[in-house]
Amino acid sequence: MNTIKTKIKKLKEVSGSHSPSIATLINDIPQLEIKVDACFLSNPYATDLFMGHLEEDLIKKNRLRDVLEFYPPQNKDISAILSKSLQVNPENIFVGNGAIEVIQAVLHRFVKKKLCVILPTFSSYYEFANDETEVLYYHLHKENKFELDLFDYIKFVKDNAINNIVLINPNNPNGGYIPKEQFHTLIEELKHLDNIIIDESFIHFAYEDVDMFQVSNEELIQNYPNLVIVKSMSKDFGVAGLRAGYGIMASNKIEQLLKTGYLWNISGLTDYFFRLYSSREFQKQYDVVRKKYIMNTLMFLSEIRSVHSITVYPSKANFALVEIPEGFNSFDFTMDLLIDHGVYVRDCGDKVGLDGDFIRVASRTFEENLEIINAIKTVSQLALIN
Amino acid sequence: MNTIKTKIKKLKEVSGSHSPSIATLINDIPQLEIKVDACFLSNPYATDLFMGHLEEDLIKKNRLRDVLEFYPPQNKDISAILSKSLQVNPENIFVGNGAIEVIQAVLHRFVKKKLCVILPTFSSYYEFANDETEVLYYHLHKENKFELDLFDYIKFVKDNAINNIVLINPNNPNGGYIPKEQFHTLIEELKHLDNIIIDESFIHFAYEDVDMFQVSNEELIQNYPNLVIVKSMSKDFGVAGLRAGYGIMASNKIEQLLKTGYLWNISGLTDYFFRLYSSREFQKQYDVVRKKYIMNTLMFLSEIRSVHSITVYPSKANFALVEIPEGFNSFDFTMDLLIDHGVYVRDCGDKVGLDGDFIRVASRTFEENLEIINAIKTVSQLALIN
Repeated sequence: MNTIKTKIKKLKEVSGSHSPSIATLINDIPQLEIKVDACFLSNPYATDLFMGHLEEDLIKKNRLRDVLEFYPPQNKDISAILSKSLQVNPENIFVGNGAIEVIQAVLHRFVKKKLCVILPTFSSYYEFANDETEVLYYHLHKENKFELDLFDYIKFVKDNAINNIVLINPNNPNGGYIPKEQFHTLIEELKHLDNIIIDESFIHFAYEDVDMFQVSNEELIQNYPNLVIVKSMSKDFGVAGLRAGYGIMASNKIEQLLKTGYLWNISGLTDYFFRLYSSREFQKQYDVVRKKYIMNTLMFLSEIRSVHSITVYPSKANFALVEIPEGFNSFDFTMDLLIDHGVYVRDCGDKVGLDGDFIRVASRTFEENLEIINAIKTVSQLALIN
Repeated sequence: MNTIKTKIKKLKEVSGSHSPSIATLINDIPQLEIKVDACFLSNPYATDLFMGHLEEDLIKKNRLRDVLEFYPPQNKDISAILSKSLQVNPENIFVGNGAIEVIQAVLHRFVKKKLCVILPTFSSYYEFANDETEVLYYHLHKENKFELDLFDYIKFVKDNAINNIVLINPNNPNGGYIPKEQFHTLIEELKHLDNIIIDESFIHFAYEDVDMFQVSNEELIQNYPNLVIVKSMSKDFGVAGLRAGYGIMASNKIEQLLKTGYLWNISGLTDYFFRLYSSREFQKQYDVVRKKYIMNTLMFLSEIRSVHSITVYPSKANFALVEIPEGFNSFDFTMDLLIDHGVYVRDCGDKVGLDGDFIRVASRTFEENLEIINAIKTVSQLALIN
């Protein structure tokens, strides 16, 4: 058992500030039996839906070769397709080889001087900053349940003469959410900044009413040209291997990007995905599984909160930040879940800005969530006994 | 028929300096019957080989979802895999979302001051240059059959105090080839430059002996740290929709790139492709179809040279630059091939540095090549009668 732990520690060290992928784990440690990947933040019901369409459209009709063999359409052609479903002008849509390509492009090309990053957050937002950028950190506090104090944050940005900010909404790794009304106050107050980068990669899992209508702030690009909305599709659809994402931003930024690059950055399969995603029929089917998954996640979060001796922080995303029992180390806790129960969660021991021992647990299918909860219950109890 | 011509003209206008893809053509002009895509520069036998493996490994074993759902390995993990088949250190391999991503990264991050580009060439090499770069053009001449005069070229670079050069070997669109010995002279003479960018995307189709051993200059990175070799896999394998390419360069360049980006730029399917490509068994199978295709291309080039009234320029790639009968316009010639014969070739009317009317014709399967030759014969004859 200790050899597995040592191997995983090594894999973790070479993965930088990200977890080793499940493929890497399975490949390098074949004796490991992973039953639930609660590290991966996606809606598995949407993956089922997408794979079903792909099977019908490409495999059964023998059309897979077509999307692999030939050059995919250019970036702007895919923006035009996506425009239909997003109800945003195609000139404001930049399609990316995963959201991370959009993040990289924006940070490298448009962000200069100061960038305010919230901690804890997705590490690429400070790791990808270029040499011309000074990163300033605004800390979320455990005492405030890691929730953003909007006015204190706005004051921090103004007091420090910050000209670029980035926020993930809902935030990763805690799931804290800025509702639409507050969001509007924020961008109105920070109209003068060069870039307001908002990562909405988890927003399909948020809701503001009982009908769970899909929330988005994308339409605000019309009135706030400094807004940059980054959107990954890996979370909503569990298609991280596809590499699909996009950015909503001022048209002059997109013109600059396309002038000297990003010609064929989208694969044929991702092009197929975006076409499917833009069809009205698929949107209807997707909305059903999106709501089903939100319901499932609500039940999951409610159950996990009932586990004795752990603390679960407020989340409107498809995961929860969990503080484990005192005296227990997050790496050991993660290893016990993995080795004894086959449940892989994110050890947040390396997350900058998290003071204490935390893990991040993703909501999966209903059945998998039961496994996750049972595993966490058992490991927490053992932790208390030892 | 004229409406089709007008539609294609429009599609061409919005495609910039690249041809509209066959998917775009089929989508926008459904009445068009395309029998042979002689615009697309790939080995169709290798596509068959790859698709066969993919069918066995992913479709039949129901493993396609695995490569689409989960995060792919990070850039450096894929370099390590590729290293085995390339016999280059992993620290010198940068894996790209298509060769074009490597081109963009190198031009944006490492090229400053002057860049010498050969004309005619692949347009992205000057279009992607950043604002800090002055592009100087070295012209190939029809009178010299578009072949590179090595010593004149070296003199041009030195006389103009040029610090970066880019060459495609074999060159696109004419197929001119710099043999290994001359190549060595070139990089030795230009040791002092900041970057010698060599695009070897068509080098699997070149040969220097009767056994058609695979040529490459990748190993020279050990002794020439200013060398950057760019390699697309879209041509050898006809997998342009996959987006797969790589660059061989000094390790400090790759460290700089990975420090602030390119974390998950490879899709799960491309990762599968690179793993397959790196296996010894696949390499053996690939070498058979590579040689078969070279033989096929040699026959094709020999046949096409026999067509009266056209001029075919020397090529060691899988295509030929063809000058069409005098008085005939390259767009009309291309349209006659497409509309009357279903053969789609590249109209070079927009290629900067080509003085006259040219088309570029790709070699396809043996059967398709017969169709191409017959079509060109017929259209050329009609051109002479009219």
